[in-house]
Amino acid sequence: MYDNMFSEDAGSFFRSPVREIFKRVDLNAIYSFAGGYPSAETFPLEDIRRTMSEVIEKYGSKAFQYGATQGVPELRQAVAKRYGVPVERVQITSSSQQGIDVCTRVLVNPGDVILTSSPSYLGALQSFRSYRADIRGVAHISDLEAFKEAYEEVIAQVKAEGKVVKFLYMIPDFQNPSGESLTLEERRMLVGLAQKHDFLIVEDSPYRELRYEGEHVPVMYSIDPDRVIHLGSFSKIFAPGFRLGWAIAHPEILDKIYVCKQSLDLCPPIFDQYVAAEFLESGRLDENLVRSIALYKGKRDLLLGLLERHMPAGVRWTRPEGGLFLFLTLPEGFEAVKFYDKALDAGVAYVAGEFFHPDGNGKNTMRLNFSFMSEDRIAEGVKLLAELLGKEI
Amino acid sequence: MYDNMFSEDAGSFFRSPVREIFKRVDLNAIYSFAGGYPSAETFPLEDIRRTMSEVIEKYGSKAFQYGATQGVPELRQAVAKRYGVPVERVQITSSSQQGIDVCTRVLVNPGDVILTSSPSYLGALQSFRSYRADIRGVAHISDLEAFKEAYEEVIAQVKAEGKVVKFLYMIPDFQNPSGESLTLEERRMLVGLAQKHDFLIVEDSPYRELRYEGEHVPVMYSIDPDRVIHLGSFSKIFAPGFRLGWAIAHPEILDKIYVCKQSLDLCPPIFDQYVAAEFLESGRLDENLVRSIALYKGKRDLLLGLLERHMPAGVRWTRPEGGLFLFLTLPEGFEAVKFYDKALDAGVAYVAGEFFHPDGNGKNTMRLNFSFMSEDRIAEGVKLLAELLGKEI
Repeated sequence: MYDNMFSEDAGSFFRSPVREIFKRVDLNAIYSFAGGYPSAETFPLEDIRRTMSEVIEKYGSKAFQYGATQGVPELRQAVAKRYGVPVERVQITSSSQQGIDVCTRVLVNPGDVILTSSPSYLGALQSFRSYRADIRGVAHISDLEAFKEAYEEVIAQVKAEGKVVKFLYMIPDFQNPSGESLTLEERRMLVGLAQKHDFLIVEDSPYRELRYEGEHVPVMYSIDPDRVIHLGSFSKIFAPGFRLGWAIAHPEILDKIYVCKQSLDLCPPIFDQYVAAEFLESGRLDENLVRSIALYKGKRDLLLGLLERHMPAGVRWTRPEGGLFLFLTLPEGFEAVKFYDKALDAGVAYVAGEFFHPDGNGKNTMRLNFSFMSEDRIAEGVKLLAELLGKEI
Repeated sequence: MYDNMFSEDAGSFFRSPVREIFKRVDLNAIYSFAGGYPSAETFPLEDIRRTMSEVIEKYGSKAFQYGATQGVPELRQAVAKRYGVPVERVQITSSSQQGIDVCTRVLVNPGDVILTSSPSYLGALQSFRSYRADIRGVAHISDLEAFKEAYEEVIAQVKAEGKVVKFLYMIPDFQNPSGESLTLEERRMLVGLAQKHDFLIVEDSPYRELRYEGEHVPVMYSIDPDRVIHLGSFSKIFAPGFRLGWAIAHPEILDKIYVCKQSLDLCPPIFDQYVAAEFLESGRLDENLVRSIALYKGKRDLLLGLLERHMPAGVRWTRPEGGLFLFLTLPEGFEAVKFYDKALDAGVAYVAGEFFHPDGNGKNTMRLNFSFMSEDRIAEGVKLLAELLGKEI
């Protein structure tokens, strides 16, 4: 009945296969390496309850009224202080997914090119496609010159087609889905390309603070603060249910985001922002982060050990220094999308890597999350998955 | 530096003059009839605190985890029950502003026509313009046949131009900004037009439950549930700081909104949804609503009395049966936008009616809000405004 009524954009919407999995099964009833859920153990319920009472005490009815579109000053200041940027460069977003979406809205016309890594974050690809962007994925190459050359080739191709690269979307730390990070040299190289070819970079950093080994590498934003829009999120360092994130960018870019956000949703949730600000300023967030990192490091180490022990020959995987995911590569010819129903019937879920590839590659890959399940269940789940794969490959 | 980088949509964003006022002055330091803020007195802080504790007790970490894109089942069910609709027709939105925005995104291509009343809600006009919709406003005419004819003429004109009407946007109850409501006959007539010319209706109902006299008139959704998308909000009946609303529509339309919302922000804030669900189910919302209605009725009556007593001859105003606003019409030639700085310097704020008119009409009108200020301040504010106007007209 409505087929002719929808917009052209609506014609290019596509469903998240991850969210479809959630609709299909109860994640708690199976061994789920799918999803990117933090562990419920990391939500400090008692601290949250206390912080909420304090917020009501301190702010009263102000915590439930409309607020500034940029976010409440207390949270903007807390974020600015934590990341060492001027407060006028901070916009609070109603989730970092909204940060991605609003950047696309503000920058991209249908047919404009967005460069991404391949694979890349599915929610970002969804958003880009919904604006009918032309997504060009570039696979990671460990040789820096070859990696640069791969980007230069794509950019030259885009120019030859008379198209424009609007921005490069990148998750430099513990990428979703691969778990891999970019070196400082790679970050500099990519910022250099953006400067040379005059496009922006959207740097998505939801996992950055979840580092389990190695040294922090500077964010791309710090290399060129006027060319990089830095997106952050409270979802992985506090709790995703608050749906709060931030964008750090040049005030001229933020001003466009600000005006757009007025008509998107007027302002981020107010009470939640005060809770996040108090949680951050009181030091509770950092205390909790220490516990989360210890927990996730244990789970990552466990998963790596289990894969080593149980996976059949011919299966490779990444060794992330942080974040929530690692990426499995199976022998050529294996189809993770096809295998998925078999796995789910047996009681184990993952996300097929193909979905993360804008170019349709990665059919023989899968993403495994190690944050959500308990250690016991991770162990049982890996054994089950390895057993199933052993029969298949 | 960024001028060539922004999207075409971004070129048509416009700033809310209301939100600009908020940035310019402290609303508590002046007599503010601007804004559409509910009274802080209506936020039941102790009940909210108790409900929040109960939610943490009842749902535990689930209240802080990611959740379904459609909204948590408890809140969808509570809304479905309250409004007598099937739960599969309920999508929770991260504010009813998001409801407006996502409907536009899903339905409208640049150049498509949206019909509205003139005047209409500024946040909706902002959203429509940001998608480069062609907005056609129709002024209210009390004669039903003439009112219908005015719409028919606009629709004929749109067709003659080879354009498409995608939807009619309407706030049938205590409209923002005019405070006026549509009669049942008018609602039927408009739904009939939508059926005849095959467009949808977006019915925005944030004020519906704030009725101070008279009988409820059926919502347009009830006249044709497959043609009307009904939008509701917790902002005026609970608290705007939660940024929660809902869309009620045919499942096929909701499915598009659902997929769109996945990439917009994944899901509405989870804890806030549980709080709203508990607040509704426990009966606290209705108890509080009774108090809010009594409070606002008092303020409306006060304002109407004061206007009668103090306003100079030649000023007319609407007599709303509910909601938060009434609309002043000043003598022809008066310019409310120009007068605004003078008023603000003297310490009283309103919103110029021109901003609500998609067609640039209404230069001699202004919107007055009566929910936000205390009765004392309303009284002082009206006297001041009347005095200033007396010197001007």
